[in-house]
Formats: sequence, structure tokens, C-alpha cells
Amino acid sequence: MKAVNNSMADKKLIGVDLGGTTTKFGILTPAGDVQQRWSIETDVLEDGRQIIPNIIDSIKHHLDMYDMSAEQFLGIGMGSPGSVDLTAGTVTGAFNLNWSGTVYPKRDIEAATGIPFYIDNDANVAAMGERWMGAGDNDPNVTFVTLGTGVGGGIIADGRLLHGVAGSAGELGHITVQPGGYLCTCGKRGCLEQYASATGVVHIARDMAEEYAGDAKLKFMLDDGEDITSKIVFDLAKENDPLALKVVDKVSFYLGLALANVGNMLNPKYIVIGGGVSAAGDFLLQRVQQNFEENTFPNVRQTTSLRLATLGNEAGIVGAASLVLQDQAETEE
Amino acid sequence: MKAVNNSMADKKLIGVDLGGTTTKFGILTPAGDVQQRWSIETDVLEDGRQIIPNIIDSIKHHLDMYDMSAEQFLGIGMGSPGSVDLTAGTVTGAFNLNWSGTVYPKRDIEAATGIPFYIDNDANVAAMGERWMGAGDNDPNVTFVTLGTGVGGGIIADGRLLHGVAGSAGELGHITVQPGGYLCTCGKRGCLEQYASATGVVHIARDMAEEYAGDAKLKFMLDDGEDITSKIVFDLAKENDPLALKVVDKVSFYLGLALANVGNMLNPKYIVIGGGVSAAGDFLLQRVQQNFEENTFPNVRQTTSLRLATLGNEAGIVGAASLVLQDQAETEE
Repeated sequence: MKAVNNSMADKKLIGVDLGGTTTKFGILTPAGDVQQRWSIETDVLEDGRQIIPNIIDSIKHHLDMYDMSAEQFLGIGMGSPGSVDLTAGTVTGAFNLNWSGTVYPKRDIEAATGIPFYIDNDANVAAMGERWMGAGDNDPNVTFVTLGTGVGGGIIADGRLLHGVAGSAGELGHITVQPGGYLCTCGKRGCLEQYASATGVVHIARDMAEEYAGDAKLKFMLDDGEDITSKIVFDLAKENDPLALKVVDKVSFYLGLALANVGNMLNPKYIVIGGGVSAAGDFLLQRVQQNFEENTFPNVRQTTSLRLATLGNEAGIVGAASLVLQDQAETEE
Repeated sequence: MKAVNNSMADKKLIGVDLGGTTTKFGILTPAGDVQQRWSIETDVLEDGRQIIPNIIDSIKHHLDMYDMSAEQFLGIGMGSPGSVDLTAGTVTGAFNLNWSGTVYPKRDIEAATGIPFYIDNDANVAAMGERWMGAGDNDPNVTFVTLGTGVGGGIIADGRLLHGVAGSAGELGHITVQPGGYLCTCGKRGCLEQYASATGVVHIARDMAEEYAGDAKLKFMLDDGEDITSKIVFDLAKENDPLALKVVDKVSFYLGLALANVGNMLNPKYIVIGGGVSAAGDFLLQRVQQNFEENTFPNVRQTTSLRLATLGNEAGIVGAASLVLQDQAETEE
């Protein structure tokens, strides 16, 4: 973010992180300081038609509570699932919110609150958050990858979020890491998401267990029909379970290869790894780093660094709030 | 490029394409119309110390000849080999020019001509040229890959050339397409450059010929010790030589995979393929397209198109001239 001028510094930002189960809110200073936080349940019943009214009510209620008015805010930023039209401020195909058609958050929220509204997709917003106040050190060149149930991402280059021609820039989950490999929900094969998401880790574990002949607790658990999670695989690997270590090596190989090619193409200062799977921490990072180094050319190996995300759940509201500032910076240029 | 205002429209641009054997020059209108073209030999003797003075003399001589003065130009743009510092306007490590240390084109050319000077590396400049007046249709999101002796590239996202933290953004030649594969001059293995450059095509041909048992003219030529070029391989493939077809399939697989991942990450409107190897034309493009489609997810497959470059040798001077306008646009914003 650019430095803000004095008239802006007194004003505040609202960040909204709209998720399938909860919607998180924050009031932030333009310096990125989170001054208030709250959350509400996301009501996905009745085609999710209460979601936007509930967001409006919650913002109004909290502004009343804090005795604040619309004039005190530079804007509201929101991260949303689905396909986001930045200019129109609309969302299409957010299936986990039960929104079947197009929804108009910008129109509705601006009309109800009188505060300028900005929106982008949730992975891009989390990328902006980590870039601004997290592991990205506010550098203009940061790529973010989130390893959760799926794999998502966002690319900030020269200080701007990249969207591409149809909004798919930064969809790191669909980088092909194994041509002809595991079938993805997107319809093609070999996507990173199938190898480095929480479900991908379990998929690899099941496949490797079938062919594994040795003695390993992970194999025993799988043969015994126990429910396995990505966390269990990493915990067993940290205890030197030989099969779990092989699984982690495979996950790290594919993640390291994909991030190496992010580096080779974009040469960001930092590639920040977040999401549930990244809770495996340095144990995962070290193994990914090794594969990253093997697959990057010298200038990238020396200047692009892998880092673990630091903001956790707060990345969404912080990044959402930063959308407001990005717009201010562009207007001022 | 943005539309130019009236005061700018009367002025001209100079584009300089500095190469290892010739230096090309062009005088262009801000609309991209090439009004004059000429070229000189690049004198790489004596550590290339005459290169910049020769460029200055040639520009001065032609301005005299056309009866034009410095005030009639918005600027000079130049594409250079080596590692370019955009802000300082310096070049380091341009080994094919015999420049061993740091050279100061901006300082020297501005002092001698009185015209503002802009510089970027040759692949980025060619990308800007194809984007502006070539296959890129002046779209804000265009990636360019050039398949020559090596493989280079440039990425334009949201209308701006990406450079990354250390100038390596757009180095598409070092995308890892085959982990552990052919050793590259960069020191790592499996770089696209080793599979899709002119030398890469020949390397693949030699390796496949060794294991090829059937009857094929390409195999006969190689066994006979004849000199093989990438052009010969493609020409034979077009005549249905069975080994040459296998080689082209392999080249197309790796190029299609790499460009698919450019698409998955950046979702440009166009990925433009240029350089000597791209002279194989639609024959190559169709095969690359098939591999591109197999490795892109639906939204990218539907919105990102592969195209052959159209400017040929002129991409350099056109792109170099456009650097001047990019700077004007940023100043005006």
C-alpha cells in the first residue's frame, strides 16, 4: 500500500470476509491496524438470500454501537467465494453460499450504508492481506497459495492484484504438475489441487499405502478403515512413520515444482504458503524449499523466497480492507 | 497503449533493437506506424565499447538527414540483451555484446541526443511490440514466448510489463517442464528451453533417433552424420517422416504444457508464440494447442488463446518505441 495522506489517516476501513459458514468483519485503520473484529453466521438457507441483508444489518448495528457514521469510512472491502465482477461489484456461481444466479453486493451495500464498496474473490483478498500485513512484508511482488480443502491463490505484481482476461489469474490450484495424473473436479488431470490440498494428501496416502509393503502406522490405520486427515499424515511423518514420510515427500515434490514455476515466471519477492495444510509448518516448508530450489533457475533461486503465512484467519478481513486503499492509490496516481 | 493526446500526436518515437550482430532502428508515430527503418552492424570488438557511440552517431545522422530535431521526439526506447536496470538505465552482463561490466546507455544517449531514453531487455521489448501492433491486438493481458536459439519471453499484465523482484519475470525458457530432465545452461534440469528452442529440437531428435528402430529419413540423416536443424525436423515432419513427427509431438507436448501453466497462472487474453522455431507455423501451433487444452482448466481454455507472432523482426523496434508511451501513460495517470 502507498502511504496515506493526512485527511485519509483519520478515516477507517471495513473488511468483510464472506465464507460458507461464517462472515467475519473488521474495522481497520489505513495503516492496517485491526481495531474491532466480529463475526456472524452465514445464512445459506433460501438460496442465501439473507446473506447480503445480514451483512448490511451487522455493519449498521456495529457502527451504531461504536457511535460511528458513514463519513468516517474510506470504504468497505469484501472477499467473496464465486466468480467476482470487480467493476460491476457482482458475484456469480458462489455455490457454497447457495447463490445460484448473480448477486449484487456493491449495489445493495452501497445503497444501504452510503459507504463506497469494493470486492474481489476470497483467495485474491487473502493474498492481499498476507501481502500487506502478513508474511509479504508489503512488498509489491508477492504470490500467495492457500492449501485447504482445495488449493487457491492470488498474485500481486508491481503492487497490483492480477486478474487476467476472465478473472482466472492466480488460480494456482489448477497448475498441471502431473500430466495425465489424478482427475480434478475441474475436469482436467494432474492439477496441483489434487496433490497438495488436504484431500489430495489423503488421496496420495491411500494410493501409496496400497503399494506399500513395509511396516507403517499410517498403512495400518488405512488398512483398518480409520478416517485419515492431512494433519494425521503430517503428524505421523514428524514421528518418522516411513509411509507418511513418503507421502509428504510426494506432496512436497509437486508443491515445490509448482511454486518453482511460479518463481520462474513471476520472480516474486515472496511466495507465501497458507491454509490448513500449511499448519505442518517448517516440516513442510523445508521439504518444499528443497524441491523449489531444484526447479528454479539461479536468479530466481537467489531472489524469490518461500514463507509460511502469518495472519491465519485474519488474512481475509485485512485483505478485504486493503481493496479500499488499492483503489485510493490508483485514483491518486 | 493509451490514447495519446493532441500535443503528443505530432511527436515521434525512436525504437532501437540492439542485437549481437545488427542494431535496428525505427522512427514511429505514437500510433505505432513505422515511418523510417534502418540498421547498422553491431561492433562487438574491443569489449563492445563502440556500440553506444555508434548508436548515438546513427541516430544523429538520421535526424540530420530527415531534418528533424530532438524536440520532435517523445523519447527513444531500446531493447538490449543482458540484465537491464530500468531505473538506472544500465545494462550488465550482455555477454554476446562483449560487455563485461556495466554500461550506461541512458546516461550516454540522453546526454548526446537530448531525448528522453527508456530501456528494457530484448525479450520484454519484443513482447511489448507483439502486444501493441502484432498478434496481441493491444490487449492489456498478453504473454509472449520466443523460440529461437534459446527460449525467452515477456509478460504484460493489466497493461504493464512484469519484471518481478530481480528482473526475471517472464523468463519462460526456464519453466521446469521435465523434472530431472535435460541439463540447461542455467545449471538446473528440465527447462523448457532445452525442449522447445532450435537447439532443443535437435537434441530431442538425436536422442529419439538413437532409440528409433523404424525407417525414417530423419534417422538416416542423423546416422549419416548430416547437420540437422530445427527447420529440417519440422520440414520432414510435414512430409510425414515418422521419427520427425515423434520429435514434433514431444516438442509440442512440453511447449503446450508450459504455455498451459502460463494460462493457468495468468489467464492472458493471448499467448503469442514467436522466434525462429515458430516459423513452423500452424503445423506447430495445432499440436501445441492440443496439449495446451489438455492441461488448462475450463475457464482458461475458453478465454486464453494461442497465436503465432506477426511482426517478425520488427517486433523489437516497435516494442522498444512503445516503452516511451508506457512511461507517458504512467506519468499522465
